[in-house]
Amino acid sequence: MSDKALNGLFESPLQVLNLGLENFAENAAAAGATSVQVDWRLPAGGNRALVEAMDTLTSNPAVDIEKANAEGLRRILEAKPTILGIGTAIDVVPGMAKDLILHAGPPVSWENMCGPMRGAVIGGLIYEGLARTPTEAEALAASGKIRFEPCHHHNAVGPMAGIMTASMPVWIVENTAFSNRAYCTLNEGLGKVLRYGAYSDEVLDRLRWMASDLAPILSDALKARGPIDMKNIIAQVLQMGDEGHNRNRAGTSLIIRELAPYLVMLDYPKEQISKVLSFLNANDHFFLNLTMPSAKCTVDAAAGIEGCSLITTMARNGTEFGIRLSGLPGQWFTGPAGIVDGLYLPGFSADDAARDIGDSVITETSGIGGFAMAAAPAIVKFVGGSPQDAIDFTLRMYEICVGENNVYQIPILDFRGTPTGIDVRKVVETGILPVINTGIAHKNPGVGMVGAGLVKPPENAFRDAMLAFAKKYTKE
Amino acid sequence: MSDKALNGLFESPLQVLNLGLENFAENAAAAGATSVQVDWRLPAGGNRALVEAMDTLTSNPAVDIEKANAEGLRRILEAKPTILGIGTAIDVVPGMAKDLILHAGPPVSWENMCGPMRGAVIGGLIYEGLARTPTEAEALAASGKIRFEPCHHHNAVGPMAGIMTASMPVWIVENTAFSNRAYCTLNEGLGKVLRYGAYSDEVLDRLRWMASDLAPILSDALKARGPIDMKNIIAQVLQMGDEGHNRNRAGTSLIIRELAPYLVMLDYPKEQISKVLSFLNANDHFFLNLTMPSAKCTVDAAAGIEGCSLITTMARNGTEFGIRLSGLPGQWFTGPAGIVDGLYLPGFSADDAARDIGDSVITETSGIGGFAMAAAPAIVKFVGGSPQDAIDFTLRMYEICVGENNVYQIPILDFRGTPTGIDVRKVVETGILPVINTGIAHKNPGVGMVGAGLVKPPENAFRDAMLAFAKKYTKE
Repeated sequence: MSDKALNGLFESPLQVLNLGLENFAENAAAAGATSVQVDWRLPAGGNRALVEAMDTLTSNPAVDIEKANAEGLRRILEAKPTILGIGTAIDVVPGMAKDLILHAGPPVSWENMCGPMRGAVIGGLIYEGLARTPTEAEALAASGKIRFEPCHHHNAVGPMAGIMTASMPVWIVENTAFSNRAYCTLNEGLGKVLRYGAYSDEVLDRLRWMASDLAPILSDALKARGPIDMKNIIAQVLQMGDEGHNRNRAGTSLIIRELAPYLVMLDYPKEQISKVLSFLNANDHFFLNLTMPSAKCTVDAAAGIEGCSLITTMARNGTEFGIRLSGLPGQWFTGPAGIVDGLYLPGFSADDAARDIGDSVITETSGIGGFAMAAAPAIVKFVGGSPQDAIDFTLRMYEICVGENNVYQIPILDFRGTPTGIDVRKVVETGILPVINTGIAHKNPGVGMVGAGLVKPPENAFRDAMLAFAKKYTKE
Repeated sequence: MSDKALNGLFESPLQVLNLGLENFAENAAAAGATSVQVDWRLPAGGNRALVEAMDTLTSNPAVDIEKANAEGLRRILEAKPTILGIGTAIDVVPGMAKDLILHAGPPVSWENMCGPMRGAVIGGLIYEGLARTPTEAEALAASGKIRFEPCHHHNAVGPMAGIMTASMPVWIVENTAFSNRAYCTLNEGLGKVLRYGAYSDEVLDRLRWMASDLAPILSDALKARGPIDMKNIIAQVLQMGDEGHNRNRAGTSLIIRELAPYLVMLDYPKEQISKVLSFLNANDHFFLNLTMPSAKCTVDAAAGIEGCSLITTMARNGTEFGIRLSGLPGQWFTGPAGIVDGLYLPGFSADDAARDIGDSVITETSGIGGFAMAAAPAIVKFVGGSPQDAIDFTLRMYEICVGENNVYQIPILDFRGTPTGIDVRKVVETGILPVINTGIAHKNPGVGMVGAGLVKPPENAFRDAMLAFAKKYTKE
């Protein structure tokens, strides 16, 4: 630069292009300069090992990752989740057994389980008749005679504690485009319920009624009606203010109106049928246990693709949050479960809260739930924040996804498809973590729900997955 | 201005503040000037008589108009529309008679009725057994033996042609805060239906089934359940993507789930009850005939307030659009019914369209429907436009209303209340006409629905009302 040009530079007003830390721009502005702030962060948070691993993966990949991801996205978009019916876990869930308890999230031992999951295990053992009292149940759980495995290892998902035992009724949802199935228990409602760690008589009596009345009646109505196309129903609820995770009033309504004409026709005492309809009407979360297996069988179809960096599982057990990648089948990458930032029910506060828990984040994994919050602005009354926040969350998720849904659309974003196909590379590079909205359980066993809110997953789970992926898929 | 100042003016760059016509600002900008465009129009479109009438009313009012309007708004906001039950028109609608046919909109003679209203009258006369064939019905309608009066003269409202005859079942909705009632027929569904002017056997058979099965079954379920708080339900549907006029999928769903547990318990053959539930499930507009009488009994409570310039009726008969003001009870102000700008069903075009018709604009009059379109972005797939248009329509309506609803909220506008209490003075002064979304009937009798869209009411109806209001309420 010549002296003249240099002098010219100092004579003219400063025009600043600021990258990164905003207060530099603020200082420049305070000094009278015009500045433009660019939202820029160091790739992978400046972590050298990660940046190098990603660089060498990019320059020297062992497989065509873009092609593998395109195949993963294709499978997710072509999925056709369909409610086939209701069965009993031991009859339909692969590998289910009397001495096996399935739980939410990545693997966890009894010793390491959080309060609400322990509470739900206690309730599950009493429900199965394997223990008579909570004390007996705790002793049995600690004895080594009961096996604990993730729902996700059995094509299943469970909300919150996600406890599934052998004799519980489960939804059977099939992805008819790929013939794979997913299973989930039926939703119990809010408040004192097993999935939030409560196990009082009220909770167990309801579970027994669900097995003796609710499940067979709904099952027979479904048989009379025929399978329900969940892709179509989820597409509709996104135009009706639901996002399929923590706002499900429209979805529950649509299921009721689909089944009611068939429920009436069944050969059960009408008091029993009426009680089923009243139960559904009183429980807006009923639909959650249908979006979950729908999402599960959707993303499961994209699992196990060689070289695919899409995230096909996110799940929490209340102790750890874990993910699995399509190209690294069977491997969990975990970090500590997060603390939920939320709204609390009267009488409760953050001091009462368990950490982030449940398989319901399978909805976000498939591109709805928190990823579709722009479709459900009224959800902020439940999880906190403003309607603009809800829109911003969805917009940010496009940055970590490889595509947009072809059927699930968000009216307010001009019917743009929901962000779909989370690429772990994008998460690590941008530092943008998947947004998750969730219920909050009490940290102690036996209490139940205390609130709902938003939570960030641990970044190291994604970084570890990225490193393992780079290690496997960088050419030697 | 001194010479020096004047020279200074011409030496410095032009800074233009432009009022009104935008191309002046565009020209200034093209010439290099900085300009700010202000959206400004001549008050009352520059109509001298109107401006003078409004000015003298403002400077010399005979009553406190602001106070009267505050009272009108208070009554609208405090309204508690509640579904009481179902009755037969002749038993419950004030002044109903066997030789009387009620119709939508302001008064209109058989000779001046549009095609779809004539079609519906023909169907109504055959339905009542007063004629056996369409030819007989037309002759009877023209004979002078049948009286035609607006639904609005009988505390009633009717969608599209709005034909109500003596033996039709009607919803009974009471504004429990003010003990006034409104009535409306039950919704028949879409396609070939009486309210769109169709009168084939299919249409008449359905009407007969509605009277023999649908109405008594729903009536008994309502008796078992007890009254339904429509204020609460409408508040909910606005958070579920409905606006209560042409998008009613959430509302219909909520009514189904409220009634289903009671429907199951009734002592009717279960096939009959199942058919009722199937009919409701197949007809998303079912809820419209509940929002309409809810809106009607809401604004009726604000009618007849001395000095109140709020609009308490808007209605169309397919020939004319008419309004009534609170402070001018009993007087209609009309103009030609508009041409709807909309989307057409396959096989139909604008050439097939009847003009704007129906009492359903009572929803807009009460502050929902088109006024709440921001809550229902998905409606644009039905009536045309973009989601941003839907938001803009609602925002514009705040400019002609005196308040915002205390219960009906729009999530995407940060839960702002819907624009409520249309002040005819504001409409005339700003030239902003109420936005109305509506179905489109075929122009010929006997065909039915051909599309849906948006329509502007005739400005002169509002101007004439304003002049009459100013005449009555300017101090002599």
